[in-house]
Amino acid sequence: MRVAVIMGSTSDMGKIEPAVDILKKYGVTVDVRCLSAHRAHAGLSAFIEEANSNGTEVIIAAAGMAAALPGVVASMTVLPVIGVPLSGSVLDGTDALYSIVQMPSGIPVATVAINGGKNAAYLALEIMAVKHDELKTKLIDYRKKMEEDAMKSNEEIIAKYS
Amino acid sequence: MRVAVIMGSTSDMGKIEPAVDILKKYGVTVDVRCLSAHRAHAGLSAFIEEANSNGTEVIIAAAGMAAALPGVVASMTVLPVIGVPLSGSVLDGTDALYSIVQMPSGIPVATVAINGGKNAAYLALEIMAVKHDELKTKLIDYRKKMEEDAMKSNEEIIAKYS
Amino acid sequence: MRVAVIMGSTSDMGKIEPAVDILKKYGVTVDVRCLSAHRAHAGLSAFIEEANSNGTEVIIAAAGMAAALPGVVASMTVLPVIGVPLSGSVLDGTDALYSIVQMPSGIPVATVAINGGKNAAYLALEIMAVKHDELKTKLIDYRKKMEEDAMKSNEEIIAKYS
Amino acid sequence: MRVAVIMGSTSDMGKIEPAVDILKKYGVTVDVRCLSAHRAHAGLSAFIEEANSNGTEVIIAAAGMAAALPGVVASMTVLPVIGVPLSGSVLDGTDALYSIVQMPSGIPVATVAINGGKNAAYLALEIMAVKHDELKTKLIDYRKKMEEDAMKSNEEIIAKYS
Amino acid sequence: MRVAVIMGSTSDMGKIEPAVDILKKYGVTVDVRCLSAHRAHAGLSAFIEEANSNGTEVIIAAAGMAAALPGVVASMTVLPVIGVPLSGSVLDGTDALYSIVQMPSGIPVATVAINGGKNAAYLALEIMAVKHDELKTKLIDYRKKMEEDAMKSNEEIIAKYS
Amino acid sequence: MRVAVIMGSTSDMGKIEPAVDILKKYGVTVDVRCLSAHRAHAGLSAFIEEANSNGTEVIIAAAGMAAALPGVVASMTVLPVIGVPLSGSVLDGTDALYSIVQMPSGIPVATVAINGGKNAAYLALEIMAVKHDELKTKLIDYRKKMEEDAMKSNEEIIAKYS
Amino acid sequence: MRVAVIMGSTSDMGKIEPAVDILKKYGVTVDVRCLSAHRAHAGLSAFIEEANSNGTEVIIAAAGMAAALPGVVASMTVLPVIGVPLSGSVLDGTDALYSIVQMPSGIPVATVAINGGKNAAYLALEIMAVKHDELKTKLIDYRKKMEEDAMKSNEEIIAKYS
Amino acid sequence: MRVAVIMGSTSDMGKIEPAVDILKKYGVTVDVRCLSAHRAHAGLSAFIEEANSNGTEVIIAAAGMAAALPGVVASMTVLPVIGVPLSGSVLDGTDALYSIVQMPSGIPVATVAINGGKNAAYLALEIMAVKHDELKTKLIDYRKKMEEDAMKSNEEIIAKYS
Repeated sequence: MRVAVIMGSTSDMGKIEPAVDILKKYGVTVDVRCLSAHRAHAGLSAFIEEANSNGTEVIIAAAGMAAALPGVVASMTVLPVIGVPLSGSVLDGTDALYSIVQMPSGIPVATVAINGGKNAAYLALEIMAVKHDELKTKLIDYRKKMEEDAMKSNEEIIAKYS
Repeated sequence: MRVAVIMGSTSDMGKIEPAVDILKKYGVTVDVRCLSAHRAHAGLSAFIEEANSNGTEVIIAAAGMAAALPGVVASMTVLPVIGVPLSGSVLDGTDALYSIVQMPSGIPVATVAINGGKNAAYLALEIMAVKHDELKTKLIDYRKKMEEDAMKSNEEIIAKYS
Repeated sequence: MRVAVIMGSTSDMGKIEPAVDILKKYGVTVDVRCLSAHRAHAGLSAFIEEANSNGTEVIIAAAGMAAALPGVVASMTVLPVIGVPLSGSVLDGTDALYSIVQMPSGIPVATVAINGGKNAAYLALEIMAVKHDELKTKLIDYRKKMEEDAMKSNEEIIAKYS
Repeated sequence: MRVAVIMGSTSDMGKIEPAVDILKKYGVTVDVRCLSAHRAHAGLSAFIEEANSNGTEVIIAAAGMAAALPGVVASMTVLPVIGVPLSGSVLDGTDALYSIVQMPSGIPVATVAINGGKNAAYLALEIMAVKHDELKTKLIDYRKKMEEDAMKSNEEIIAKYS
Repeated sequence: MRVAVIMGSTSDMGKIEPAVDILKKYGVTVDVRCLSAHRAHAGLSAFIEEANSNGTEVIIAAAGMAAALPGVVASMTVLPVIGVPLSGSVLDGTDALYSIVQMPSGIPVATVAINGGKNAAYLALEIMAVKHDELKTKLIDYRKKMEEDAMKSNEEIIAKYS
Repeated sequence: MRVAVIMGSTSDMGKIEPAVDILKKYGVTVDVRCLSAHRAHAGLSAFIEEANSNGTEVIIAAAGMAAALPGVVASMTVLPVIGVPLSGSVLDGTDALYSIVQMPSGIPVATVAINGGKNAAYLALEIMAVKHDELKTKLIDYRKKMEEDAMKSNEEIIAKYS
Repeated sequence: MRVAVIMGSTSDMGKIEPAVDILKKYGVTVDVRCLSAHRAHAGLSAFIEEANSNGTEVIIAAAGMAAALPGVVASMTVLPVIGVPLSGSVLDGTDALYSIVQMPSGIPVATVAINGGKNAAYLALEIMAVKHDELKTKLIDYRKKMEEDAMKSNEEIIAKYS
Repeated sequence: MRVAVIMGSTSDMGKIEPAVDILKKYGVTVDVRCLSAHRAHAGLSAFIEEANSNGTEVIIAAAGMAAALPGVVASMTVLPVIGVPLSGSVLDGTDALYSIVQMPSGIPVATVAINGGKNAAYLALEIMAVKHDELKTKLIDYRKKMEEDAMKSNEEIIAKYS
């Protein structure tokens, strides 16, 4: 299992790191790149071409402001592309959200929440789990654990307010 | 290949139909349902449980206003869930967009454009193509055709303005 | 008099605590829970079923981002459900406001201001006062006191600027 | 059971009528008034004073633009006040939504969706059902019927797409 | 010359003080009050009635969130009412702006910028200058001074960048 | 009594006409002009200079989009300037509202609702009534009539729903 | 003088045509193309490469929704790129505005109003007039004519309201 | 090569300085001015008249709130005017963005990102490079360097995550 994680700028690294961590925890090979659609177009094209033939299964692209990166990546591949709108400008990520989610027909970007790096990772895992049964089992286990944790939090809250 | 397409209300049918058509054109078995998260919760649970074990590979959920449907579906499965925010209220779909895209960590919804039914279908196809090579080939062909059509439009525009 | 107060995440506790304090001050039994609609669905269902038959009169549900919790709770009960949109994401609670207030016909959520935990408590009290006369008297007294306090503030302002 | 329904302008009548119809169907006495907070303040005060002592259990107030009506009514009573933001201005009801939902502490307005007249009625019924058991039973029946209707719609959709 | 300055809450004092200072500097008698439309309605009515007959020429009303104060004041007088939307909630004053500026026909509120206390004072002065010629002369002098100061800033900038 | 009414474009005439009608009904001399801040700057300057010395008491300026007109007029006079944001662009007048209301300190514009031409006229009348007692009396009469009309509407609504 | 005008889709033609007409009226050679950044990337690259060496002086790029076109073009050239955000989606062009104007440092797009095709043409002319003196003279003449037309409109308005 | 950089207030200096630095680095003569459209209109007119005849090739105008400056400057010249919306008010620069970008037909402002001072400089350079070949060469070199830097960042990211 292999996922490419592309950020538009090195300043986005902190918001993308949790996604990389989650993917690695699930045994995914992660290729992290910093390739702006506007400043490193040739490098981006080359990398996507590579990704199209090296077994990469999902691409995550994160960008802020006029966030063209996810859409441009999507136009270069039929691999599922997950877009992560990043805050950072004074518009708090609504600019990036609109730039990523409002794609024209035929070239979709799977958009997650503003700064939703973690969910980009989980969505990538779910997509790969369509093919990889053992990953699906792990994700079902993770959900069970999530629910157990949630119920434990609930117990603590009940205790606290009793 | 099997995809579930769920709408929250029968009035959303017109916006969901193009997605169904595209999926069928690519030979996908489509289970279309009208199951509101708020009005048909038991029916929805039963259907998702079924989808979790009948070979469904992707779920598309479309809803307007306080569009809880895609997120609630996502909480019931580890299959990739694609959310389609629908316009229809006076807020023109921004309410649905925010309700669908801003999911908490651990339970992602792959959000497409407001009224982006067609792209929900293409995203579902791309996700299934991770597993199904012949579908991937068809999608690459579709992209080539899309580009050819785009270049033909360009020729017409050039002719028109010369 | 019994009210259930449900938050979607333990991180919301600080915003919900003032509501609990107000309710207790008026002699209301308060059941506080942390039950996410997305992460603890079964636990939430069980708790609402319980609330439907243990004399609970009002349910307050607070959540941020794609705040499905109040609407999902509302779909499980005919008790009045008060929704509190919480800020916390970069969208400052507009996401939660739209997700909570824009409910479809038949399943209302009584929405209060973003981070309006206190008013959720007062609204719950007003609702219960329809039935409980002594509570109504207390609320009328509270309003009188509020007005007296407001007039005292006014006196201070007059003194300050004279 | 008695509910007051106040609109700010006669032009709001069409948006308020469905609420009146629903309330009457459930056997509620409905006092409909057209009393603007800005243009008919004395008449509004007199009416609310009356409502405070004639057995009215809930007040619904609907207004557009700088929709002060629900908040002003709320300041005159400890009865639960339901606010309905109406569209009509070029701002499509976001002005009214903000004017109604963002109430200061101590004086809540239970806000429903923009143009959500029907849900104002259902919320009023739910509030009264806290006291009136037979109404609660009717509302539970209504929810069951709603779910049955939803499942019938689902059957039709299944049939249509098979 | 007499101006009433009303704030909805003592917490708004810091934002209103510059307006009071400006008005006093121009020899205006200023009556400062803290009278919420929602919490001190009787006191507010009494004060406006007084203002209507004691020679008050303009009323400034400042409020945040569901800022009903300026509109309610405007409905009680034909004196010009200047509304100052205040930030303070998570919506940064857009809630107050919409609540104040979108008044219905017949009862205008002269709205200034969010947190625009100073301009409320200058607008009040301009309104009174329609009647008071000596004030008009002072305002023209102030504008000349403002322009001279602006040109001095320009000289400094030119010097700095040469 | 003399009021200048300036629109930025002849296409705004329909939205400005009600203001002119109201002013004339109250015996005000109205100078209507079409003078864009961007396209007719010299003409605008000349007209405002004239207005500053011919007894004009209030200036109403209406404009859409990047509505610089009211602010530019305000910078040329110490007469009270009323700004009317007009819809017309795809942004429905929010562009004009922000451009008009967010004036810098020292140069206020009294902003009314989007398309609020009528209220611009009433605000102008209220401002002039500070000086002209007979106009004040007429405005008080108008408010009484408005309230009577409102109460008649209320009677009709009561009759309709009884 | 040569300008390239690129639209993302043939459906944008009606909004781009006025720009082409204005440019031609001023004797500019106009190369009109329909080349989506997402669907015709190779064709777009080829065309921009050509424009970079065939004497093109300015590029106008118009697109709606997640309008990546102007930014992508800007990344391929150091010619001035003018971006025209187009309405068309339910978000009325705010999506396109944010996608076009919020460019990262180093790669600017000169953004004009939503649907501002005409101004894109005038801006292109102003840019070329920096080099071409005779065009500058024509633009100054155009401005004079614009002012004369504005003053004529003013005369008509004066006549109409006298 | 000569560029005028105008800010509306000395408080905007920090946001404009990077633009001045970039322009000087490319050998451009920069005339920096602080001339508000509202407070220093005569000084602004005089300066633009001067700029129209002293060889200035581009004008950059930066302003916040009801940012009339760029549009007013544009109405006084046929030189290309670049507008920089500045944040600073509670509306975070959306007020300035709308006030600057939504110009009427015939008088364009080339708008860059909120606080986009740097891109205003690069856009000015690109515009002048239409005329000045050596500047064009420098800009092409800058883009190459930008791409090299971007690829170096990418190498660092690759190294970091391997």
